[in-house]
Amino acid sequence: MNDAEPDAFDLATAEPGEVGIVRPQDYTSAEPFTFECGRTIPGFTLRYETYGRLNAAGTNAILVCHALSGDHHCAGIHGLTDRKPGWWNNIIGPGKALDTNRYFVTCCNVLGGCQGSTGPSSTDPATGQPYGVNFPIVTIRDMVRAQHRWLTAIGVTHLHAIVGGSMGGMQVLEWGLSFPDFASRLLAMATTARESAQAIAFNEVGRQAILQDPDWAQGNYPAGGGPRVGLAIARMMAHITYLSDASMDRKFGRRTVAERPPSATQPTAAGTTSDPDHAFDVTFEVESYLRYQGKAFINRFDANSYLYITRALDQYDPAAATGSLEKAVAAITARTLVVGFTSDWLFPPEQNRAIVTALLRAGKNASYAELETDLGHDSFLLESPQLYDLVRDFLAS
Amino acid sequence: MNDAEPDAFDLATAEPGEVGIVRPQDYTSAEPFTFECGRTIPGFTLRYETYGRLNAAGTNAILVCHALSGDHHCAGIHGLTDRKPGWWNNIIGPGKALDTNRYFVTCCNVLGGCQGSTGPSSTDPATGQPYGVNFPIVTIRDMVRAQHRWLTAIGVTHLHAIVGGSMGGMQVLEWGLSFPDFASRLLAMATTARESAQAIAFNEVGRQAILQDPDWAQGNYPAGGGPRVGLAIARMMAHITYLSDASMDRKFGRRTVAERPPSATQPTAAGTTSDPDHAFDVTFEVESYLRYQGKAFINRFDANSYLYITRALDQYDPAAATGSLEKAVAAITARTLVVGFTSDWLFPPEQNRAIVTALLRAGKNASYAELETDLGHDSFLLESPQLYDLVRDFLAS
Repeated sequence: MNDAEPDAFDLATAEPGEVGIVRPQDYTSAEPFTFECGRTIPGFTLRYETYGRLNAAGTNAILVCHALSGDHHCAGIHGLTDRKPGWWNNIIGPGKALDTNRYFVTCCNVLGGCQGSTGPSSTDPATGQPYGVNFPIVTIRDMVRAQHRWLTAIGVTHLHAIVGGSMGGMQVLEWGLSFPDFASRLLAMATTARESAQAIAFNEVGRQAILQDPDWAQGNYPAGGGPRVGLAIARMMAHITYLSDASMDRKFGRRTVAERPPSATQPTAAGTTSDPDHAFDVTFEVESYLRYQGKAFINRFDANSYLYITRALDQYDPAAATGSLEKAVAAITARTLVVGFTSDWLFPPEQNRAIVTALLRAGKNASYAELETDLGHDSFLLESPQLYDLVRDFLAS
Repeated sequence: MNDAEPDAFDLATAEPGEVGIVRPQDYTSAEPFTFECGRTIPGFTLRYETYGRLNAAGTNAILVCHALSGDHHCAGIHGLTDRKPGWWNNIIGPGKALDTNRYFVTCCNVLGGCQGSTGPSSTDPATGQPYGVNFPIVTIRDMVRAQHRWLTAIGVTHLHAIVGGSMGGMQVLEWGLSFPDFASRLLAMATTARESAQAIAFNEVGRQAILQDPDWAQGNYPAGGGPRVGLAIARMMAHITYLSDASMDRKFGRRTVAERPPSATQPTAAGTTSDPDHAFDVTFEVESYLRYQGKAFINRFDANSYLYITRALDQYDPAAATGSLEKAVAAITARTLVVGFTSDWLFPPEQNRAIVTALLRAGKNASYAELETDLGHDSFLLESPQLYDLVRDFLAS
């Protein structure tokens, strides 16, 4: 049982069906942690949140794993004046698919992250300076091993389920491989057991935008500084890959920013001087949206974390060692459900299905569901009664 | 008849079936040119090449229109020591689909370009300095109007056909709208009558990478200088959109650069120090390929031209004025063939088909062909006997 738990959420202030106010907590391990790459740090912190109560038998815990740019704040709000709901608030809460009346739901910021967990922006005790690129290369497996230590420390010895989308889905799969007895159910969405060349390519362009920004300074930028331009470019580009062409067209189409019509489509009288200073200002609404996404991201994310976590995504490939995903998943004992989304072109349905195919060939209890959406990769984050039903049924199975 | 034509190519040095050595030529108009935006420049130059001979009746000319990063050099080689073939050499030559034994084929670098035609890197006669972002906003229609002046000046009064892919296809369509009597046949490939929000979004990220590179210097960088980092990032990202996921996987898969295996997938003995300086060096072959593409591009392309030409792409929307592509194409009189490619996700088949649907609804002579490829947007540039047959038959029709 988590000893900080009574303060962790405040049902009194919660709207019906909502988690209410939650307080992030820190778990700190003073034991050394050795990464898959062989390097060791003297200890680490994971920031996490919990929703619902662990039952006496300790059998109702669900771990939620977040995606690249996510964090531990996946449900509820942080206060009456900080009402930004967690990133998966639509699926977590009393009576929701991840029903906090029944389950003890928890989520931590990953190792290597920048929202309170130890990562490149944390202070290296050996130098008193941020680790920067001296932080060890982190893998999906490292993230999972750190989570295992944390969960064990806060009294969770077995999980009813592990749930996550995108990079969260990779962690779900890796949990099944690294700690096969720890969870009864694995539920991965919009994910892959290895990225395609195209996904690696997009991540690489984002990394190059960061690495070549002069403010990256070989990774040794001051806290609050860093390659803001490069990180914003990386985020803008990545954001396109999270949506579908159809959803962008529905949301923005070719609509222009109303205040300033595009100069070239509105011919002026011959000889009139155009406004060259503004020739490349925002013209289309989709441009304005992307610029906003880029700016918002640099205020909440660390560029070195972005480098490390995208690398972890690219390098994840549990089948590499044996040359076969079917062999790799031999260790898994949990029931597994993988959910793909038809319009997800970053981790397309066939990559999701491939995980289940391998599990079934290895004689495992696994099933695959494909949801028809036109919202792209981010479908797993969005409201979907169909997805809620799938999740609810799987958790009750 | 082009008076420089006898020197324009050298059959004596040509391999059988090849155009041989070609010499780029310059057409300079000393008459003022007023852009669609209303601004006027005192004159302009277009650099071009020609292959084959114009017949006495002047009825065998074919105009080739290039894509965003293309230029006038679409066939042959520039010399025995500069053997880089033109970008469409596989389709242009004696006996090829654009048969230079029968047709007089020509192509110019677009207005706004940077390969010899007047564009942002050209000297503004009013200041003696490069135009930079004082260059007028250029549109697809401006490009076509400049081409019309050039062709007329070199003695071409009618075209057997106009052929182009991607942005070249937009020019083909615009030729049919702006100068309906000038060409008998319009052949557009892998193109669109208006970009989707996703295509605009990718162009916008590329522009932001350039605009926010400190070396862009508000567009006033010196010749040979400029935002090399931003331009390389823009090119790397755009290059991903020209290929398909399947073709990237076939070409690169998850293969790593042999000399330096990725540190994180190869655990070393605990306590070994990893090599943090190289943590984000090239790991996968696809990364190496993209970095090469980025570097090669900055040595041949001007960043301001990239801004102007992507803007022209984004703003092209002939249906905007009337609200209907069917109404917009009412002026077209030429036979039209549009070719889409199944794996093109930048300008997908349905956007190609939409052009023909509008033409047919307007009672025009138009047909659509869809080629099954898995090579993505760049399919139009690649070897395809099926495409060659289509082109040959259409030109003979």
